Amino acid sequence: MKASADIGIVPLGAGASLSRYVAACERVFTEAGLQPRLHGYGTNVEGDWDAVFAAVKRCHETVHEMGAPRILTVIKVGTRTDREQSNEDKIASVERELAGE
Amino acid sequence: MKASADIGIVPLGAGASLSRYVAACERVFTEAGLQPRLHGYGTNVEGDWDAVFAAVKRCHETVHEMGAPRILTVIKVGTRTDREQSNEDKIASVERELAGE
Amino acid sequence: MKASADIGIVPLGAGASLSRYVAACERVFTEAGLQPRLHGYGTNVEGDWDAVFAAVKRCHETVHEMGAPRILTVIKVGTRTDREQSNEDKIASVERELAGE
Amino acid sequence: MKASADIGIVPLGAGASLSRYVAACERVFTEAGLQPRLHGYGTNVEGDWDAVFAAVKRCHETVHEMGAPRILTVIKVGTRTDREQSNEDKIASVERELAGE
Repeated sequence: MKASADIGIVPLGAGASLSRYVAACERVFTEAGLQPRLHGYGTNVEGDWDAVFAAVKRCHETVHEMGAPRILTVIKVGTRTDREQSNEDKIASVERELAGE
Repeated sequence: MKASADIGIVPLGAGASLSRYVAACERVFTEAGLQPRLHGYGTNVEGDWDAVFAAVKRCHETVHEMGAPRILTVIKVGTRTDREQSNEDKIASVERELAGE
Repeated sequence: MKASADIGIVPLGAGASLSRYVAACERVFTEAGLQPRLHGYGTNVEGDWDAVFAAVKRCHETVHEMGAPRILTVIKVGTRTDREQSNEDKIASVERELAGE
Repeated sequence: MKASADIGIVPLGAGASLSRYVAACERVFTEAGLQPRLHGYGTNVEGDWDAVFAAVKRCHETVHEMGAPRILTVIKVGTRTDREQSNEDKIASVERELAGE
């Protein structure tokens, strides 16, 4: 089952600056071949369901090892059986609507 | 790694009523031993990380089989290394604050 | 426009324990008449759209005043034009499904 | 109070294709001066707290008028008192970490 997802990790008890932890997870997602695309509140990824969630787990393990005692991650995950659609396809579809096509 | 999570499933292209699908996932979570606790926007669960995410996957598979062509699930997942804390513990901790203890 | 919502506040740079801040927001929601119902990952509320979001703003102001330099809040908000449905109604509807009615 | 937010709207009972509704909200955010930046699971916006939430309300009103009987929106909203930080700043900060600076 293919999954596209948006993943926003929030380390707690680790100060107000999160970029170092977010960067560590970006590396995990890249190594897993999930084509991460960072935005201001998370990272879009896509791939096989099991690969996506194995990477989220590795990301939690990594951020705990970096010293964060508590992590809260918000995940949006989508699957569909009607057709294949990448995150890029979804964005392109909205942009076509905006262009009035 | 123990995980506590909140899982809100949203089937798309399946009408405006979602309760039948939410109920199917409740059954999946119960069978997986995750102690589901339903609220108005999702279900709190807790258990081993792998058991939690295996159940979320089974929930997607089940809801697709029931006819929903597209599913969006919002997951909040928490892990901590400083101490164990169940969802009940978290609620009790806020209630103690409210009681002024 | 009536809104039902789920609100999960996460203060950052304020340590790993969040219960004190969550309790402060519970008080704000109660004073606003939003019938808060706490769960392990947030609080269900319901009321007029403007009352709900005025309370969320007051909650951010309160938690900053308590000393948290940064706050991230995750909100799920639902509106519907087909019929009225409270958070209690939604839960009851799933429970009827589970009971096989 | 300045807010940065991520907003993902999900119309229910309106079919499996959402792009037309997402595009309508993009127009609302642009007209409100919130500098929307679309990604695969939502839109980053930023501006004054009240302007952000007035736009989310207008987006719900618009999508109901377009025919969706039920809408679920997931919002992540951040405020901070320690310093100003745009969504672009957050992304740049992670990218500097990734570059090893």
